[in-house]
Amino acid sequence: MQQPRAIVLKGKPLAAGRLPAVCAPLVARTLDALREETAAVAAKQPDLLEWRIDFFTAIADTQQVLAAARVVREAARGIPILLTRRAAREGGQAITIGEVQVLGLYDAIAATGSVDLLDYEMENSPPDVARAREIARRHGLPLVLSFHDFQKTPPAAELLERFVRAQALGGDIGKVAVMPQSLQDVHALLGATLRASESLGIPVIGMAMGGLGAVSRLCGGMFGSALTFAVASAPSAPGQVPIEDVRATLQVLQRATSG
Amino acid sequence: MQQPRAIVLKGKPLAAGRLPAVCAPLVARTLDALREETAAVAAKQPDLLEWRIDFFTAIADTQQVLAAARVVREAARGIPILLTRRAAREGGQAITIGEVQVLGLYDAIAATGSVDLLDYEMENSPPDVARAREIARRHGLPLVLSFHDFQKTPPAAELLERFVRAQALGGDIGKVAVMPQSLQDVHALLGATLRASESLGIPVIGMAMGGLGAVSRLCGGMFGSALTFAVASAPSAPGQVPIEDVRATLQVLQRATSG
Repeated sequence: MQQPRAIVLKGKPLAAGRLPAVCAPLVARTLDALREETAAVAAKQPDLLEWRIDFFTAIADTQQVLAAARVVREAARGIPILLTRRAAREGGQAITIGEVQVLGLYDAIAATGSVDLLDYEMENSPPDVARAREIARRHGLPLVLSFHDFQKTPPAAELLERFVRAQALGGDIGKVAVMPQSLQDVHALLGATLRASESLGIPVIGMAMGGLGAVSRLCGGMFGSALTFAVASAPSAPGQVPIEDVRATLQVLQRATSG
Repeated sequence: MQQPRAIVLKGKPLAAGRLPAVCAPLVARTLDALREETAAVAAKQPDLLEWRIDFFTAIADTQQVLAAARVVREAARGIPILLTRRAAREGGQAITIGEVQVLGLYDAIAATGSVDLLDYEMENSPPDVARAREIARRHGLPLVLSFHDFQKTPPAAELLERFVRAQALGGDIGKVAVMPQSLQDVHALLGATLRASESLGIPVIGMAMGGLGAVSRLCGGMFGSALTFAVASAPSAPGQVPIEDVRATLQVLQRATSG
């Protein structure tokens, strides 16, 4: 058994090692909106920004996406950026390009030095996951291998297995987000996150979505989750809590656990 | 399976049914200090006051204790009062009177109408537990049957069994407080509380003590705990969080889960 791990970027633990670090999503659809959103979100100083390129309408136009990547980097004022194309079957927006182009885009954006981590769903085909890993390695970026179930919460053993798989597939960080149907589901997600954080060699991110799961976004760090997603401008998934509320709760927990 | 239950006093759910209600302990040793403490604590408007009579130095003097009960009632400004003699072996103060006198005191205080609930440890001898139950019934007061382990956290099945026993012994509310040695222990306590709240016919109170367990004092209501103990003047057990911090967190949780 070991201490839960923080996400490390270029040798430095994110948020000075605090669990969880706080990530705010960027979901703008156009270049101008993205510039504005990034500036507004960065002003709230989250520890990380997640740029959800599946929301970007011109995703099929590589030059526009690369221009957007530069815009986000500039407006982020030094806050590191997680690049994510969330697949539609895992709760993302429907896009017009296929997996080859998506991975080409990951490669091209990573090559510009505009992002700091990549997220890719572990349910993608093994060759695609291997390619994502190869791109991440080549550009020296940590790879989040993620799993989302927007309908339900798989049994506890299966949740743990997802984290294990993230590591087995070469992920540098494992992420599991599920929709609870009951508080037992929320409890199971927290338990699997805790077990994974104590037994795996990589940082893990676990969350239960929706209102029922909100406690996991606020207190998941106590159960080993390295990152929580909070709303700075607009939510990217159900149940995300305003960043001010997340911060206030983390401060209370910090005082309470050290007291 | 059912919804977790709130504590009900005279037909009215405590804290308008919010889970958890917030209880602040009174731990003064003298009559004057108790008057002052009760007034100061009541001003912070917890939902319930727990008068810990094992802290009261003159506990062997029934007349002084009855005078103190009136003082607490008066200074409480209508906030209901839980009467508790915490046994030394369960984390209370050492006292000079035996179990017969303690139960006599419970009876005498209850007879004055100065308190609204009684707490008694379920580990006491079966005849003593039966007597506590009889006293509570006769005065129409709900009885909390409680269990505390200040050293460790028993296995999950045993935790659940304590809640079941509280109900089987005739308790109107079951309470289990344990000392976690790990986050797994905190997770187990929350799980047992949730299961008990969904399967028993009485409200339950579950908490993990110490800094490690503080998350259970803040978020235990999400896992079915009907009451959390918070500091308004002085703590009565390790890990209790200031009432302002508990309230702020409950408000965030309330917004987040209804959003």
